[in-house]
Amino acid sequence: MSRTTRIFRFLPIAVGFYLLAKGVDAAPPDAITEIRAVILAQQGAWNRGDIDGFMNGYARARSTVFVSEDTVTRGWQTVRDRYKKRYSDREKMGTLTFSDLEITPLGGDAAIALGRWKLKRAKDEPHGRFTLIFRRSAEGWRIVHDHTSAAK
Amino acid sequence: MSRTTRIFRFLPIAVGFYLLAKGVDAAPPDAITEIRAVILAQQGAWNRGDIDGFMNGYARARSTVFVSEDTVTRGWQTVRDRYKKRYSDREKMGTLTFSDLEITPLGGDAAIALGRWKLKRAKDEPHGRFTLIFRRSAEGWRIVHDHTSAAK
Repeated sequence: MSRTTRIFRFLPIAVGFYLLAKGVDAAPPDAITEIRAVILAQQGAWNRGDIDGFMNGYARARSTVFVSEDTVTRGWQTVRDRYKKRYSDREKMGTLTFSDLEITPLGGDAAIALGRWKLKRAKDEPHGRFTLIFRRSAEGWRIVHDHTSAAK
Repeated sequence: MSRTTRIFRFLPIAVGFYLLAKGVDAAPPDAITEIRAVILAQQGAWNRGDIDGFMNGYARARSTVFVSEDTVTRGWQTVRDRYKKRYSDREKMGTLTFSDLEITPLGGDAAIALGRWKLKRAKDEPHGRFTLIFRRSAEGWRIVHDHTSAAK
């Protein structure tokens, strides 16, 4: 068997390894379903007055960021504290609705979720858009970066 | 040469293909430098009154989105039209400064850029934050998703 012939015989193995490597990085078809479930679980927790449950959607990391207006809040704990302070009772929390979700995978371990948010409260109905960047971790898909804006 | 021996002889080739495949997906060390250059080129174009130059930072695609307040602008052309309308003269454009850039790779072909923006104008100085999602394309790194917010 010549060297060339041998290379051609083993090419399928090499190509197999290549596809295996690529496959690891491709978004599984259920990534979108899983991310949608995380977002809907957040909505459910919020509407039960459960901010800690809501916070389960975020990666428990110092690098997790929440951006709004001209402010960046850094770290899971600090993001939680901000929510707890800003929405200190059920009246302030109101009823949260997320809608118009568009989830776009970015490779196999990251995705963007764009959507609308609305709070229905006794005295006002603030609303706007959010861009969430999700990463896949051992615990599942979690938000690592949240940029939220409100209608003027 | 036994079958096993042959497999071992060609294993380095297979592993080579595997590493090649993984390498394609890993962020090259200069991704951050390239993304920073795209953002600084946008700032330079803006400050020359060149909105088309500024728009080169965005992916020329229908899927490109610009999000602010409660509004989503879809498609490169529509984003350009929004900028042209909103910043119709040099006075409205003012002088743009981007600062505090933090670029985080998401796999090899995507990255997040978080930063501050400020417009210095005769009558006001609006400022805020932006989250840009970059993807690597044949033309280089381009913004596919921009979520920008302003201080109240």
